[in-house]
Amino acid sequence: MELKINTNVNFSKLSENYLFSDIAKKVKAHAAAHPEDKIIRLGIGDVTLPLTSSVTDAMGKAVLEMGNKETFRGYAPEYGYDFLREAISRHYKRFGVSVPPENIYASDGAKCDCGNLVDIFGDNEILIPDPVYPVYLDSNVMAGRKATLLPTGEQTGFLPRTDGLAEKPYVVYLCSPGNPTGAAFDREGLAEWVRFAAQTGSLIIYDSAYEAFVSEDLPRSVYEIDGAEEVAVEICSLSKSAGFTGTRCGWCVIPGAIRAGGVPLCKLWERRQATKFNGVPYVVQRGAEAALSETGRRESMDNIAYYMKNARVICSMLKERGIFFTGGVNSPYVWMKCPGGTSSWEFFDLLLSRAAVVGTPGSGFGKCGEGYFRLTAFGSADATKEAVARIADIL
Amino acid sequence: MELKINTNVNFSKLSENYLFSDIAKKVKAHAAAHPEDKIIRLGIGDVTLPLTSSVTDAMGKAVLEMGNKETFRGYAPEYGYDFLREAISRHYKRFGVSVPPENIYASDGAKCDCGNLVDIFGDNEILIPDPVYPVYLDSNVMAGRKATLLPTGEQTGFLPRTDGLAEKPYVVYLCSPGNPTGAAFDREGLAEWVRFAAQTGSLIIYDSAYEAFVSEDLPRSVYEIDGAEEVAVEICSLSKSAGFTGTRCGWCVIPGAIRAGGVPLCKLWERRQATKFNGVPYVVQRGAEAALSETGRRESMDNIAYYMKNARVICSMLKERGIFFTGGVNSPYVWMKCPGGTSSWEFFDLLLSRAAVVGTPGSGFGKCGEGYFRLTAFGSADATKEAVARIADIL
Repeated sequence: MELKINTNVNFSKLSENYLFSDIAKKVKAHAAAHPEDKIIRLGIGDVTLPLTSSVTDAMGKAVLEMGNKETFRGYAPEYGYDFLREAISRHYKRFGVSVPPENIYASDGAKCDCGNLVDIFGDNEILIPDPVYPVYLDSNVMAGRKATLLPTGEQTGFLPRTDGLAEKPYVVYLCSPGNPTGAAFDREGLAEWVRFAAQTGSLIIYDSAYEAFVSEDLPRSVYEIDGAEEVAVEICSLSKSAGFTGTRCGWCVIPGAIRAGGVPLCKLWERRQATKFNGVPYVVQRGAEAALSETGRRESMDNIAYYMKNARVICSMLKERGIFFTGGVNSPYVWMKCPGGTSSWEFFDLLLSRAAVVGTPGSGFGKCGEGYFRLTAFGSADATKEAVARIADIL
Repeated sequence: MELKINTNVNFSKLSENYLFSDIAKKVKAHAAAHPEDKIIRLGIGDVTLPLTSSVTDAMGKAVLEMGNKETFRGYAPEYGYDFLREAISRHYKRFGVSVPPENIYASDGAKCDCGNLVDIFGDNEILIPDPVYPVYLDSNVMAGRKATLLPTGEQTGFLPRTDGLAEKPYVVYLCSPGNPTGAAFDREGLAEWVRFAAQTGSLIIYDSAYEAFVSEDLPRSVYEIDGAEEVAVEICSLSKSAGFTGTRCGWCVIPGAIRAGGVPLCKLWERRQATKFNGVPYVVQRGAEAALSETGRRESMDNIAYYMKNARVICSMLKERGIFFTGGVNSPYVWMKCPGGTSSWEFFDLLLSRAAVVGTPGSGFGKCGEGYFRLTAFGSADATKEAVARIADIL
């Protein structure tokens, strides 16, 4: 029946994003019409290598503990067990960054933290780069907030800049290395944002989910920049670094020095999480601790090296052909310009029909993504080589 | 630094609940002053028996799958794997209830669902029984909503009634068997609410987290009541039934027939979850599936029988002494009247100082809880017997 209660009207302001369902439909139709084609998917944003042995060993051990009365664990601390918060804090030391465990809040992933952080804010001027991971925008729209999209493009290598922004307080979302563009800030580029935030009393929400893919001398954490601990919250995740997309563990860092509305920002987050969240599964926290150990991190980096070989195969071909792209060096994503002025969807159709390769149309990530296309390095080595050869043939 | 952004001002309207930290402080002080006392805790709302073997077997197997390239799983479907949604649907058949898998949304627990459901509603008249599990109220206050507390007391056995309510649409929270009172609706009592909701266009949010403790012929699901599938959302969890407090899996049911604001309510929840949630860990979903299997449920019910023996020990003593209580029969909670007109905290101090037993002051759950006290059956059999003997001595 039709109830008389009020629903959240902001949901009607969300733009329906049919990106991945449209892709699925087109791929299905192609497969039906051309059963002889071996379709290769370079559109997927999900990892394909399994959890590493130190992670599964730790999780297996934790499962046994949970089955034993003496070692069973009930409710976990809402912000994560000390052993995990300390492991994350030690992880930051790898980048020369000091983040105390008490400023680290474990969660079931970066997407959840991105979505849930909105709860602790009031109405603000919100800045979101375009093209972008859709959760930043959609979670704000759901809460009735208006966001300003910050156009990016080739001239800045798809990195957002502070040029031309009014001198007022914003909540700014930054993701580096970025999704979908793979573009990564250097220290000066990120320092520009930290200075801007300090000058204007703005907050940066920094998504470092792809930090493990940084191969050049670029920041892996916003806290590598002086003063960031006064103006930036960082969200990170083991999804892409340690293959936790189906295992779910991430964290956010809210430094104690950040205050807003007269209170430490972390106190609002603590209250939010204590009220609406009940902690990460113990078994998963033990897996996360193992992933961040010396051995675990080495294993993760081996997997990342495997993916990044794929990225190099894609990038070499694009370079040879003189096609503009970002990413692929410090990111599993390669963001290429569609050749010959084709639109994102035109290039998608071309690639599917003539090469049986599936990628992601850039226009699905925002207006500034039109005319660009995302390929990912998460496939197998053989399939990636084959796909790249086929793409080269039609370019 | 003090940023200039706006925070959520509604957080300042939350009443600071120091209940469990105040209890911890008093217990610590007592332990320091009386090191010879063996303190027994009957205040805890957490389970103490370990996960059962069918659950740990399934989780252990799933961990191995996650470590193997052929069986590894990345992102899970946002609403749960079909195998879990189907297991939950089969579980409902145990109560003679038909809930299709596509109306079931797996989550990381009932607390999270309670908190997150608020996202899909606008401003409404909200009814919350007093005394109550604090999440219903706090998650609404955080979203800037005002709630009306519905007083309950001895005359209705601490069950909320529709008497005297205006004929208008409400969002009503019901929990049966209830926390903290252990009071459980019979079919007629629950049918009264379903009729009221249908008449007024109201929505019931029904928390059935304690369904497994129902031992009498009382409803375990709101959908045992005719017409509930038109007006009620149900939130359930494996935390208390299968010992998942530290493993995290629950679900909510949003029947397809419920519409509000011109759209099916489930579509709003689907969009909310797809945007701000990324699924339950695969390993946990396999554990949950096992907990709901025939063997798993039998093992769970053995554990519950163990806890309910403790409840009977507590209730027998209270009956002998002629002390009013609710719960303890269909619930692990026993909600007793403080003897001799003492306040909740006076009785807490008396019990701690003279019997070295820790319980939970009822006033911590709302104004109508003043003068009452919560004991739980989640302790060990020996400790519970000893605690009950000590309480009997001082009554």
